[in-house]
Amino acid sequence: MQFRTGYELVYTFPQPTPIILVVNVHESRAADIVVPDTPIAEPPVAITGYRDAFGNRCQRIMAPAGRLRIHTDAVVNDSGFPDAVALPSGPVAVEDLPEETLVFLLGSRYCETDLLSNTAWQLFGNTTPGPARVQAICDFVHNHVAFNYLAARATRSAAQTFAEGTGVCRDYAHLAITFCRCMNIPARYCTGYLSDAGTPPPYPAGDFAAWFEAWIGGSWHLFDPRNNVPRIGRILMARGRDASDVAIATTFGPNMLESFKVWTDEISG
Amino acid sequence: MQFRTGYELVYTFPQPTPIILVVNVHESRAADIVVPDTPIAEPPVAITGYRDAFGNRCQRIMAPAGRLRIHTDAVVNDSGFPDAVALPSGPVAVEDLPEETLVFLLGSRYCETDLLSNTAWQLFGNTTPGPARVQAICDFVHNHVAFNYLAARATRSAAQTFAEGTGVCRDYAHLAITFCRCMNIPARYCTGYLSDAGTPPPYPAGDFAAWFEAWIGGSWHLFDPRNNVPRIGRILMARGRDASDVAIATTFGPNMLESFKVWTDEISG
Amino acid sequence: MQFRTGYELVYTFPQPTPIILVVNVHESRAADIVVPDTPIAEPPVAITGYRDAFGNRCQRIMAPAGRLRIHTDAVVNDSGFPDAVALPSGPVAVEDLPEETLVFLLGSRYCETDLLSNTAWQLFGNTTPGPARVQAICDFVHNHVAFNYLAARATRSAAQTFAEGTGVCRDYAHLAITFCRCMNIPARYCTGYLSDAGTPPPYPAGDFAAWFEAWIGGSWHLFDPRNNVPRIGRILMARGRDASDVAIATTFGPNMLESFKVWTDEISG
Amino acid sequence: MQFRTGYELVYTFPQPTPIILVVNVHESRAADIVVPDTPIAEPPVAITGYRDAFGNRCQRIMAPAGRLRIHTDAVVNDSGFPDAVALPSGPVAVEDLPEETLVFLLGSRYCETDLLSNTAWQLFGNTTPGPARVQAICDFVHNHVAFNYLAARATRSAAQTFAEGTGVCRDYAHLAITFCRCMNIPARYCTGYLSDAGTPPPYPAGDFAAWFEAWIGGSWHLFDPRNNVPRIGRILMARGRDASDVAIATTFGPNMLESFKVWTDEISG
Repeated sequence: MQFRTGYELVYTFPQPTPIILVVNVHESRAADIVVPDTPIAEPPVAITGYRDAFGNRCQRIMAPAGRLRIHTDAVVNDSGFPDAVALPSGPVAVEDLPEETLVFLLGSRYCETDLLSNTAWQLFGNTTPGPARVQAICDFVHNHVAFNYLAARATRSAAQTFAEGTGVCRDYAHLAITFCRCMNIPARYCTGYLSDAGTPPPYPAGDFAAWFEAWIGGSWHLFDPRNNVPRIGRILMARGRDASDVAIATTFGPNMLESFKVWTDEISG
Repeated sequence: MQFRTGYELVYTFPQPTPIILVVNVHESRAADIVVPDTPIAEPPVAITGYRDAFGNRCQRIMAPAGRLRIHTDAVVNDSGFPDAVALPSGPVAVEDLPEETLVFLLGSRYCETDLLSNTAWQLFGNTTPGPARVQAICDFVHNHVAFNYLAARATRSAAQTFAEGTGVCRDYAHLAITFCRCMNIPARYCTGYLSDAGTPPPYPAGDFAAWFEAWIGGSWHLFDPRNNVPRIGRILMARGRDASDVAIATTFGPNMLESFKVWTDEISG
Repeated sequence: MQFRTGYELVYTFPQPTPIILVVNVHESRAADIVVPDTPIAEPPVAITGYRDAFGNRCQRIMAPAGRLRIHTDAVVNDSGFPDAVALPSGPVAVEDLPEETLVFLLGSRYCETDLLSNTAWQLFGNTTPGPARVQAICDFVHNHVAFNYLAARATRSAAQTFAEGTGVCRDYAHLAITFCRCMNIPARYCTGYLSDAGTPPPYPAGDFAAWFEAWIGGSWHLFDPRNNVPRIGRILMARGRDASDVAIATTFGPNMLESFKVWTDEISG
Repeated sequence: MQFRTGYELVYTFPQPTPIILVVNVHESRAADIVVPDTPIAEPPVAITGYRDAFGNRCQRIMAPAGRLRIHTDAVVNDSGFPDAVALPSGPVAVEDLPEETLVFLLGSRYCETDLLSNTAWQLFGNTTPGPARVQAICDFVHNHVAFNYLAARATRSAAQTFAEGTGVCRDYAHLAITFCRCMNIPARYCTGYLSDAGTPPPYPAGDFAAWFEAWIGGSWHLFDPRNNVPRIGRILMARGRDASDVAIATTFGPNMLESFKVWTDEISG
């Protein structure tokens, strides 16, 4: 199965402005890339690639004053299989966690583990450690939070999502990540493309999706509390502690985002 | 049954400082007062009484610079019966609410109805309207919030209590009040004396208690989500929208509260 | 000078829904009303008037399922004079405050006096008590907060406005009110019509305005930290502790607000 | 000059509990260590060292049930010179920042850059880029925040510190770091020992200190908004995005911290 994936960002800048982009298909999917997702800037500007502390492929651009269009249109192979379901496996005790996973136990901008710890243990303390516990967290979050993209707010944190009971996919991910960390399960935030193929679109197409990975029994496992069912056509872009680490575009100066489109279309036949 | 009730507040003020006190036994208990709870100030200062917008008996004092001790020691009759349990009665629709109850549907300092509305309907939308719904709210709050007076924080709001899952009696009351208002049930905050008689003290004696009243089917009914069982020896002092309306003492200037004691002791034999 | 003032609210309700409206011209302007601002509902429904605890003229409506249009179109006389500027007058000490003003010193939903008290004294402790202090607060708020109606958020509180440095007229009012109360100056929230006459419109016409009144030296004085210059064509509708007390329309059930228009047009010649 | 530095932590654990410690003198000071600061556990337990993502020397311990005392007592050489003052040097534009500094521009748990960005530009937009801008930030924070260790709260964030105007050294650091990041200046949080030598102790001895480093003109420079004057006897332990990355001790289970002492004493002649 193949997917045509891409995005188009159109900005207007009053003055030359540095930008950091985190919009590349993740290196773990490099072998699947048929037509590369190289960002194209109009007018053309130098694009410098680098890797951030989480291993994501990032780009720096110096946007000139005026209008800037950044876009790509790639083709990516995909197994066509739904997301794998995590199964019970090895040990899950804190003392068995590899050192590199420990940073994903800590609080971060949108994941206030210090605030939600009591609540997490109250809600999930009696669940079975391992994948069942993470699934219980996803089930709770999926049912507790009402999807409402009209009420989206870029500054909404996990504790706010829990209280307000409303959010978009990034809020579902942040709340579930926070509960996992409170229960001593390393959890990291993921962004990427997600196809609507085979299911009715959960909401107007045209945004990146957010989900997360939890470390259980010796490896990272994917969970998607927004959809909470296995999906097909999921193509990872970047991972981090939360959305602040992997913002699609970080602009260092005033700007107007005039248009933003994303597509993840199955290529038929 | 009789209770000896009283308090002692000891302040030090660097300069003359106005104070508002809301520490009188409520007028609804006037017939029960055997020895009056007149506040006594040392050194003696003028104490001026007035009624606030909620009908509470308040006092204004101009504290001189230096040390001020305010205390009382009263005797109050009490039925000795436990709190009445609210039973289903008349209509509970919003359109049947008397106008004077409507203010107790609105948000207030520690009761963010706007933030918790989705969550309230998600948690309690399927409960039976009337006293059963308020009891469901109290049961939830009682179980969700872990009592911890070491973690008390005067600025903690209902949305914070819900997220943090910890609090003291005022936090239990604020969270339950907020959920009631979200469900269109008028709810007002109460403070007063509460005896430990007949039950082990829930925590070190020596503070006023907080509970609330909900308007159901034509009258106000008492609920205490902190204890969540009928208690005896409950003597109302004041009612308001939340704790900001009925602070024991509001001081208009810098001060040091050196000591604060409260007692509600059954007078034996 | 005469102003044509009115509004149009269009809702769709999935089920019969109670509504409280606080959209009448304030009784203090009764003598100025040439054509009354009686709300008209389409389809016609019973409208019941009452006064809330702050003396505001409110209405209760039981909206039927389906579409409801509520509108009015009034004519109101106005002096045509700009807002009066508060001048130094009588005493301003807390101990001289009338009892009925004391409730406007307390914290409320959007005015967290407990959180902002240190900051208020740090910013305004050296200003001259009286109108100069309130004006200093308005100047600070006017300069600190960038007007941005695209970033409006109905749940934003004074402490959030202070941190975020952005808001709309209600946020300016809440922040200034909170600072006043922290400085022991009673302050109450006001909503109403405000004309653009004679000045360029500060932003797209079509919303009610918010300002506040502070009690100084024996009477209430008007301040408008959003505009921070005297304006003409200001017609009070309601007063309260903050926006939660005087929401234009409080709806007790799900609904969709399809359209909301407000006008305050000078009637020429 | 030499300092005797050390700490003593005494815990009681109801069950075996993993702990992560970040209490070692930083590797950058390795050459100054005369008597090593090896943590000693009583009863003796295995202590495993590792480096976190920020290069800090950390330790993992599996605490047995019961009482655990962890302590050290080291001797560290120090120049005896006060903190260097940052001077203007190379370029400070975002496009000149090395990639490894970019993570220190992002929001983190206690540093809500998204919330405070408008305020930062409003306060510091007219200051001179470079060290003068960071010093202006430190001056503002030093004056705006009143030190009050009685009001310490482990969950207080930069936006809360800004609103509340009170805090302890970590709050000063978080607020200044957040303002720096908002102004596109990479800033990282530091903890360590700080001597009272030569100055009256700013508050009761016995806690680690917090400060920060800002990246200006090609290198990291130390700033201490709590003290805001050069100090002597500052010995770095760890760096991170904020306090959540470098908590002294992270315990994965219930526990009681019975005692916590820290010392940084000049060894006389």
